[in-house]
Order: sequence, then C-alpha cells, then structure tokens
Amino acid sequence: MEKRLYNFAAGPSAMPPEVLERAQKDMLCYPGAGCSVMEMSHRSKPFMKIRDAAEESIRRLMDIPGDYAVLFLQGGASLQFSMVPMNLAPRGALTAYSVTGNFAKKAWEEACRWGDARIVASSEEDGFRHIPKIKAGDVPEDAAYLHITGNNTIFGTCYGELPFGGMKDAPVPLVADWSSAILGLEIDVRKHTLIYAGAQKNLGPAGLTLVIVKKDALLAFPDPVVPTMLRYEPQIKADSMYNTPPCWSIYMAGLMFEWAEAQGGVRALERRNREKAALLYGAIDSSEIFENKVAAEDRSITNVVFTLPDKELTDRFAALCEDSGIINIKGHRLVGGFRASLYNGVSMEAVRTLTELMKDFERGL
Amino acid sequence: MEKRLYNFAAGPSAMPPEVLERAQKDMLCYPGAGCSVMEMSHRSKPFMKIRDAAEESIRRLMDIPGDYAVLFLQGGASLQFSMVPMNLAPRGALTAYSVTGNFAKKAWEEACRWGDARIVASSEEDGFRHIPKIKAGDVPEDAAYLHITGNNTIFGTCYGELPFGGMKDAPVPLVADWSSAILGLEIDVRKHTLIYAGAQKNLGPAGLTLVIVKKDALLAFPDPVVPTMLRYEPQIKADSMYNTPPCWSIYMAGLMFEWAEAQGGVRALERRNREKAALLYGAIDSSEIFENKVAAEDRSITNVVFTLPDKELTDRFAALCEDSGIINIKGHRLVGGFRASLYNGVSMEAVRTLTELMKDFERGL
Repeated sequence: MEKRLYNFAAGPSAMPPEVLERAQKDMLCYPGAGCSVMEMSHRSKPFMKIRDAAEESIRRLMDIPGDYAVLFLQGGASLQFSMVPMNLAPRGALTAYSVTGNFAKKAWEEACRWGDARIVASSEEDGFRHIPKIKAGDVPEDAAYLHITGNNTIFGTCYGELPFGGMKDAPVPLVADWSSAILGLEIDVRKHTLIYAGAQKNLGPAGLTLVIVKKDALLAFPDPVVPTMLRYEPQIKADSMYNTPPCWSIYMAGLMFEWAEAQGGVRALERRNREKAALLYGAIDSSEIFENKVAAEDRSITNVVFTLPDKELTDRFAALCEDSGIINIKGHRLVGGFRASLYNGVSMEAVRTLTELMKDFERGL
Repeated sequence: MEKRLYNFAAGPSAMPPEVLERAQKDMLCYPGAGCSVMEMSHRSKPFMKIRDAAEESIRRLMDIPGDYAVLFLQGGASLQFSMVPMNLAPRGALTAYSVTGNFAKKAWEEACRWGDARIVASSEEDGFRHIPKIKAGDVPEDAAYLHITGNNTIFGTCYGELPFGGMKDAPVPLVADWSSAILGLEIDVRKHTLIYAGAQKNLGPAGLTLVIVKKDALLAFPDPVVPTMLRYEPQIKADSMYNTPPCWSIYMAGLMFEWAEAQGGVRALERRNREKAALLYGAIDSSEIFENKVAAEDRSITNVVFTLPDKELTDRFAALCEDSGIINIKGHRLVGGFRASLYNGVSMEAVRTLTELMKDFERGL
C-alpha cells in the first residue's frame, strides 16, 4: 500500500485508520449478512441492527435525553438551513440569527426565504475574527429560535460559552450547527432545542447529516408547501427511513461512534484535541512569521487558521508541506493562508510533524 | 471470507464483486492521494478527477447530449418528487402525472403541495398490474410537464414505449423517474426533458441521486421560497458541488459506470438482463403454482414479482430460499409474495439457482 499522508482537510477529513481497516475487511461480506453493507436492503435485519447500534452509540456519546429524536438524514448542513425554519417556525414568522461566518450567513439567507429572519449579532465587519456577545435584549422574545453556528470552519472561531449559557436561561429556543465540532468537544444537548451537523468531519463520510431535536419543539403542522422530505416528523416516525437512507454513511458513522467510545468518549477526545490545538497554537504564537488573527478567547480547537506575511512565503511553505506529505492545509479560498483541521481522526503525530516543519521553515529563512 | 449469498434485493441491491473488490483494495489509500476517498477534500484534485470521470462515463453510457446537465445529488428519488415541480413549474401551475405505482403516487402527492397536479392516467384500480395507455387528449396542453415512473419496483411493471413515443411528439415535456431501470435497459435521453434516479439499484450505493436535465427547460426564476438546495441551477453551476457532495457514493457510482462500460455498455447489459428475466418469467409461466399477474406487455425485466397460491406455500418457499442462500426475495409489504430484482449486479447464476429451486419446490409437492 502507498503511504498515507498527513491530512488536515476541513471536511471531508481524516478518519482513524482502524475504522477504515474494519470497513475494508467487511467490504464484500458483512459478517452474517452474505453481502456488502452497500448491497443490503435497508429494511433487512442486518442493516436495521447497524442503524439501531449507531443511534444507541451516539446517544451514549452525547448523553442524548429520550425526549430528543436522533435523525440520520441527507443533504448536509446546507439542507438544514431550510429544514430548521420550515419545521420550527410558521411561514413568515420571526427568527433570530447570529452571523459568525460564511455558513452562518448562508443559514440566515435560507431562513429569509421562509420568514422574517433577523441578524441579532454579527462579526462580519471584522472579517469574522471573533464571536460577538449576544445580550438578552438583542433577541426578540417572539423569535421562534436563535440560530448559531457553534464552530466556524473557515474562520477558525468557536463559541466557548453558549449565548445565555444555553437553553434554560435563553429567551428563545437555541438551534446550533455544530458540524465541525461535534464529538470533538463536549456539547450539552439539553441546552439546545436542535443540533445539526454534516457528518464529514468527526462523524463519518460526506452524505450524512445528523439531527438531534427536542421532539416537542417541532411545529405540529408545518406549512403544506413543505416537502415531506423536508419534514422531521415523518423521519422521526420512520426511524430516519421514510425513504432509502444513506446506508453506507450510517454504517461508517456507526464505526466512527464505536471508535469514539473505545477512545474513552467525547471527554477524552476533547482532551486530546485540546492538546493538539495547544501544540499548534503554541507554535504559531511563538513564531515571528506565522500568525493567527482570531480573538484569543474565540479560537477554535478544531480549525486552526494561520497566515504568513506575504505571498512568497505562503507559496514556499505550501510547497514545503506538499513535499513533506502534508495535504489539504491551504486556507479556504475566501480567506487564503493556511488552515489545519484537527478532527478526531488527525493524530498528534500529524500535528507534531506540522509544527516541526513550521519551526524548520522559520529557522531556515 | 464468508460466502456471498444470492441477493435479489430491490434496492439497495447486489453489486458486481469486481467493483467491491476495487473499492476494498483502495480503501485506506486511493492511488496517488495518500488517503481514502472518504477522507478527501471534495475540492481536492484527486476527488475532482473522480467526479469528472464519473460524469464523462455516464454521458458515454447513456449518450447524454451536451445541452443536458448531469447532476449528482442527495435525497433520493423522493426529494426529486419536490424538486421537479419546484424547478419546472411556477407555484400553482398545472402538471400531469401518470400514476402506475406507489412511488408514482408519492410523486404526484408531493407535486400537489406545489401546484395543480392532475392524474391523467392511473392503474390503481387493478392494483397497478398494468401500464395505462395515455392518449393525446388526456394531457392538458398547458401542463408544465407529464411525469411518469418508468419502472415500478414494487409492482413489477415497466413502460415498454414512452407515452407519445417520447418528447418529440409529446404535447408537453416528459419527466421520468427511471430509478430501477436506469443502466439496465436503453433509455433515450433525448426523448425526456428530465430523468432522475436513486442510485441504489444499478448506479451505486444509496445516498446518491442522478439527475439528467435539459438545461433550457428549467425555470429561470424559481419561486423565492424554494430552498437553494432544492434548485438545480446552483448545482449545475457548481458541478454538483454547491455544498459537500456524497463523495463516496459518487466514487462508487464511477466504479459501477466503469464496470458497465467494460461489460459492453447498456445495450449489452440490457441483453443480459432480458436473458435473466426470460429465464425467470419462463419458470413462472411454465409453473402451475408460481404466478405473475402483471399484464404480459408491461412486465418489468428488472423487478419480477410472483406469488404462490396460499400462505403456507409462500412461507415454505421463503424458508427454502433462506436455507438455499437466497436473500431479499420477499415481495414489498404492500403486495406480499415474492420479488426478484434482476439488476446489473445480479448474475445469471443467481437467477438459475432461483429457477432451479422453484422447479425443485414444485416437483416436491
């Protein structure tokens, strides 16, 4: 086999080799099934077992209470941008959005198609380099919910504290896109009305979306124009199998969950992720050329963005990374520079290789 | 490795072992990429190459003209039930549906959320055992399109001829759900305005939807309420990457397409499928206990449904199948009995094993 490289992709992203090896082993014949997981009828016993085990595992990992539904859907976080307002707010109703990055803004834009979506906080003016504080008076009390993007993948920021400390004391229900931090740090489900996440970071391959929703928060009668596929209720009733689900992605997510449990759960993974982030931020902060411009208290432990002073150095370091077996380290096209995503599947060894390279690069100038 | 069984599932369904072996081999390290396909950034060169090759291959296989877009989407055919009217018909506009089965009816139901969807033909009264003929006067000339379900997976029927012989002579544009026959028989794309298909039959694993659409047929300005994710235009502009696509499913579809080309293309696959179907229908027709109730001219070569005279024989034959390594042969819960789906991934050997078992069973009574 060719050598596996150090993969810092923002998503789809690195997965633990043990998980891939397990999938590889059972590729042609899942134990006891006589066929590949990709060939299984989604209504067959072996697949139902795979699905149920995945749900049970994520419920344990995130301590999800029984009055919350767990859904395995398609369409990515981008489809949730529409499903959230359609299922939580009547057509035209008021909703509140905190705009802390590119995807937060897209979430708001889609909500505008449905109703009166108001921006109650934004950090766009400073290039999304901090997480704005939201005060009680900022959120209209008649808003159907407040939507936040917990971790901003492109800009490398993350909510350290939830607005109002989360649901109990918040004036309105809290909805959060936790795509790029879920299972990478501890998230208190009880403080949210709805959490959603695209799978392609810590959960599994692209093509799967996890939704965790407090069942009694859903509209009893969404507007008739809302497609059945965009309603949570039919999927809740059908255990996410209103139609054929993305079976392979659910299977892979189940393997990822099993792996996460074997690592000691989310607390242990967060500890490891904080160590990886500390190492990388330490290297940046002690450098005279590498820089991270995010407000210190809002730094993401998942996506670490950094820049070099000019294009020549940027190109040289990018070339050095490529030569050193480091891939997918370039920043998003909106911001340039570099971004190292430190998801659960990224090893400490990978981060150490990167920081050593940064030091060597600076020393050699 | 455990023994692979004879898998007649209606979808997700049997795949050629060569395709699975290829995916297995490259699972941890796709050649030249240093990571698994599941770990690739969707904007990375290796993945873009995979995506582009898949599109080129399906264009060759189906002879898709340049003025048709090819989209790799999520949500299954069920999401297309909504996307089709939202992108081809203004809100409230007239559309025409031929209802020939469960999914055809669901397509119509979803279209009713959007506009004035009329049933212009139906075979519901005889339990969907035939394909109703559609005459010119049946379809209002101001309908935005006529929607058909080309092959009815549950009821085992298929359009032998398109209504009006297809688009050139049809009074309105033709839209077809070809989920369970695509790549299994020759379909003339030029006779359709839009074709869609869930992947989990002949195209690859569940979680991917193929859409082939004549670009100039799309509404220039869909209603503002339509979510961006439910518009074809942004996906066409972004080569199906408006958001993170279902990368693994696209990769697997690419391998399936490559395999299909290596088999000699759709014509060769259809010939083989007709041989498999002839063998199975022959066994049914020459039997005194097995029966297929579908109108002879409307029989599907993909999904062959059959029954036994009573519950006792049905249960006994089902048990015999299980003991003989035949899986997923039970009929859909709506109709009972048996259903053998003969997709491209189902071998002649599997069909022969089934027909021999049927003969043995009858002989032993």
